[in-house]
Amino acid sequence: MQETIQNELVPLQMSIDNLDAALVCIWAESFRCTQAVGILKTRYGLPVIDSAREQSKMIRVQQLAFDSYLDPDFTEKFLKTVIKEGIRHHEEVADKQKTQ
Amino acid sequence: MQETIQNELVPLQMSIDNLDAALVCIWAESFRCTQAVGILKTRYGLPVIDSAREQSKMIRVQQLAFDSYLDPDFTEKFLKTVIKEGIRHHEEVADKQKTQ
Repeated sequence: MQETIQNELVPLQMSIDNLDAALVCIWAESFRCTQAVGILKTRYGLPVIDSAREQSKMIRVQQLAFDSYLDPDFTEKFLKTVIKEGIRHHEEVADKQKTQ
Repeated sequence: MQETIQNELVPLQMSIDNLDAALVCIWAESFRCTQAVGILKTRYGLPVIDSAREQSKMIRVQQLAFDSYLDPDFTEKFLKTVIKEGIRHHEEVADKQKTQ
């Protein structure tokens, strides 16, 4: 019985581990891009928040999440995180450049 | 000037959009796995929380995040989300099976 459980459980846990690793790497790459956007916005004096872009991002991500059967509550949290972290990175860059 | 800004900004925003899409799909796949783990745990009467596995996951993800230059504050938030959502899915499955 114990062996049957392990044979079913371990492959799923290995997939979860691999997917966690993929998430970490993709978040890291995404934040490299948001930081680069922050540098550009500061250089050209553009506003940190672009409401039209955030709005279109929300619609696109919600549709993609629906198509992927992603839990709608989690989708909301994910969207808030993406937008909040993006703004935080832009602000960090702007603050750094002010003190230079 | 306006064209220069757009030429620099738009490719980065396209990358961010693609990375958002990748994150949504990988989260969706990860949750499919955690739900399957939840079904197995309920079927075999295993506890929802496996502290040893959570501990080793934290060490592995922290190392990977460090190697990817992911912001340590964000890494903490990410880890909490992964663990909390995993437990939530296991509990949801257990509740569903109890009411069947």
